[in-house]
Amino acid sequence: MQYRWTVFFVFRFMRPQEIIAKKRDHHSLSSEEIGVFIDGVTNGEWADYQITALVMAMFINGLDQAEQDELTRAMIYSGKTLDLSDVGRPVVDKHSTGGVGDKTSLIIAPAAAACGLAVPMISGRGLGHTGGTLDKLESIPGFSVGLSTARFKELLIKNGYAMAGQTGEIAPADKKLYALRDATATVPYIPLIVASIMSKKLAEDLDALVLDVKTGTGAFMQKYEDSVKLAAALVRTGEAFGVKTQAVVSDMNQPLGKFVGNSLEVYECIKILRGEIEPGMEPTLELSIELIAEMLQLGGVADSADKAKVLVRQVLDSGAALAKFRENVEAQEGDPRVCDDPEMLVDRSLLRLPVKAASPGYISAVDAFALGRAICDIGGGRVKAEDNVDHAVGYASAVKIGDEVRAGEAIGVVYCRTETQFESISEKLRNAYKISEVSPETTKLIRATV
Amino acid sequence: MQYRWTVFFVFRFMRPQEIIAKKRDHHSLSSEEIGVFIDGVTNGEWADYQITALVMAMFINGLDQAEQDELTRAMIYSGKTLDLSDVGRPVVDKHSTGGVGDKTSLIIAPAAAACGLAVPMISGRGLGHTGGTLDKLESIPGFSVGLSTARFKELLIKNGYAMAGQTGEIAPADKKLYALRDATATVPYIPLIVASIMSKKLAEDLDALVLDVKTGTGAFMQKYEDSVKLAAALVRTGEAFGVKTQAVVSDMNQPLGKFVGNSLEVYECIKILRGEIEPGMEPTLELSIELIAEMLQLGGVADSADKAKVLVRQVLDSGAALAKFRENVEAQEGDPRVCDDPEMLVDRSLLRLPVKAASPGYISAVDAFALGRAICDIGGGRVKAEDNVDHAVGYASAVKIGDEVRAGEAIGVVYCRTETQFESISEKLRNAYKISEVSPETTKLIRATV
Repeated sequence: MQYRWTVFFVFRFMRPQEIIAKKRDHHSLSSEEIGVFIDGVTNGEWADYQITALVMAMFINGLDQAEQDELTRAMIYSGKTLDLSDVGRPVVDKHSTGGVGDKTSLIIAPAAAACGLAVPMISGRGLGHTGGTLDKLESIPGFSVGLSTARFKELLIKNGYAMAGQTGEIAPADKKLYALRDATATVPYIPLIVASIMSKKLAEDLDALVLDVKTGTGAFMQKYEDSVKLAAALVRTGEAFGVKTQAVVSDMNQPLGKFVGNSLEVYECIKILRGEIEPGMEPTLELSIELIAEMLQLGGVADSADKAKVLVRQVLDSGAALAKFRENVEAQEGDPRVCDDPEMLVDRSLLRLPVKAASPGYISAVDAFALGRAICDIGGGRVKAEDNVDHAVGYASAVKIGDEVRAGEAIGVVYCRTETQFESISEKLRNAYKISEVSPETTKLIRATV
Repeated sequence: MQYRWTVFFVFRFMRPQEIIAKKRDHHSLSSEEIGVFIDGVTNGEWADYQITALVMAMFINGLDQAEQDELTRAMIYSGKTLDLSDVGRPVVDKHSTGGVGDKTSLIIAPAAAACGLAVPMISGRGLGHTGGTLDKLESIPGFSVGLSTARFKELLIKNGYAMAGQTGEIAPADKKLYALRDATATVPYIPLIVASIMSKKLAEDLDALVLDVKTGTGAFMQKYEDSVKLAAALVRTGEAFGVKTQAVVSDMNQPLGKFVGNSLEVYECIKILRGEIEPGMEPTLELSIELIAEMLQLGGVADSADKAKVLVRQVLDSGAALAKFRENVEAQEGDPRVCDDPEMLVDRSLLRLPVKAASPGYISAVDAFALGRAICDIGGGRVKAEDNVDHAVGYASAVKIGDEVRAGEAIGVVYCRTETQFESISEKLRNAYKISEVSPETTKLIRATV
């Protein structure tokens, strides 16, 4: 009888309404309450409409540090966690908060692996204006991102890296929460972002983690101060969970590198891995080197940034990074000929139509969000999670902030299937560029290291 | 082309996420945005999880007066509104915020009709600790609350009153919103309560409305100040929509009158209509007279409270109110013999088991919520909306606040089906009564008129 009453009491105490009311009324939630919430998200005992009510209350009334850590912990343990203790190399991952033309993962993973790290890259798909590593990989003919946990680990041990999609097994609570947050305007709140990102990364059994927090018009966090705050919160949480963590705040006020679009971005990466760097691709290489160098230092492979960068240059120049990339493409059933002939990735049947500068002057600002969104609109990305992607279409930037242009000069080239597609976005693309009479101040690519 | 862009713009502007984000960020919503929200609730275009996210943001960040009025207006027009312009009598309704043992509707409707008003009583069902008029009516054998709008209006013209359930046609947005609020701890916020109550009542095409706002342990609003605030907000909204509105704040610190339970409450009302008032029933009569008197004044039938009360006494004493009640029972297919023999409503097969005072002293407080909930637990009410109700079971109060009791004296009697039922609630009932050594201050039944 005593026992039954206890059970009744616990059940009563943990009704969703009572937990929701507590946060609604500005109280902190206990670790037990947060645990009940995340269990309810994971096993479906909480209705979606109860989840979003609590998340909105969290968004408005806030989560303190203890709550944020508990939320992260509960989300990590909502699913399986990897055991990578026996891969025999320092396990170090990189995560980016997402941007336009951000394709560094495809350079970082093979180069870092070639330097001796194990890189367990679990990536996502693109949504909205940002691309996703999985979509990019799938533009390589035959490439499969669906790896079992055993096969993922096997490749990690054998090749030093593997590229896989997030299965339902890792942090399933995050998958559900993120979809609901996206539909209810509760994404942009740092403690929720931290719990979302870190629950997935901390489930990977990492020794170290390097975060690339984007800032600017094409980033999730547009304001520099917010990006630095997010970077600090991410680092703090990584450290709190015993993972050496460093964050780089990088500029996303224009697309990164030359291309936007899945196949075209893979083309850019292979060109860089081959040392055949085209004009406009330099920032992709610069940021990749910076991030790999951080990974090597955290992983104990290099004891200074300079030494780390020398090491990265070596594996790039020697072709060791490209060889790693090829190993991985073969292991994941992709066509390795893309490594020898990256032109394979550029669909010859596409129209290439120029976007022309409306007036002469200096490129002073780029709305990278609008640009990413425009490519999404012609099929290059997803508006909704269930959309199909046209891997081939995309965009090549012909100018960067600070460049001088003449009226009518091409500021970029759209790779599209029809003229109608081009017409539907050309105005938006032209308007995404601000042209001023005076030369603007330019910002560095690496804004801060946290 | 211009047109298509306009459509696109409106669509974009009115995405649920953008409206939610606006309220999340403490901005006021425009009437158009509130209209889009309520349309989305009504036609299912907004997902439940989007509705609750916005409602939580409204709860925490608040709604101003204009937003509250727009919400009420949008909810009224989410469904059909009645046209009662041709019933030929002043159309006046009464609405109570709900309490334990609150059965005044069954006296008010016939008595007010006997005085010359038309009373279009659209009622709800009980949920949780509070009862519902429809459940009470259905304990009369054969009584049907399912009336078409045409039949409802016909009875209103012919008999001066009709008793019907809220169909999906009247304020459907409220029905959905209320269920979601109940599940997400967003019920107790005055602007949402006002919009919920008033949208249903203002759809009835009333000339005047009297509100009975309960205050105390068995009321939705336990604090007197909150009840007065709610009463003022309700009155202000009624007036803003052109309906003469008055609110009475009445005491709900103990069950109203003698009985709690559907059949037993109908029994109490018929006894009062017959002038056979048993000890304990007086407050039911007192509050009914007060509320009818307000209705008669607002409806222009009496020009002072005193004259109105004289009129009410006349229709009660003359049997005119009972005759109206009988007319209605017959018209709605109920067995009219209950009017002659109310004992028919008391199930002879029930056990009647006393709850005994634990100690001697004065009844100083009653937890009317716990009491209502206990009767609900033995089947007298609904825990969930889909539960069945046992109309026969219930409770008779034997004491009121201020009464002196001896230890072991019966403070109430449970009408139940089994001893197990009694045992499951007797402790809760005993604990619902606070007994003190000194005689407590008692509060008036009518606390305020707003």
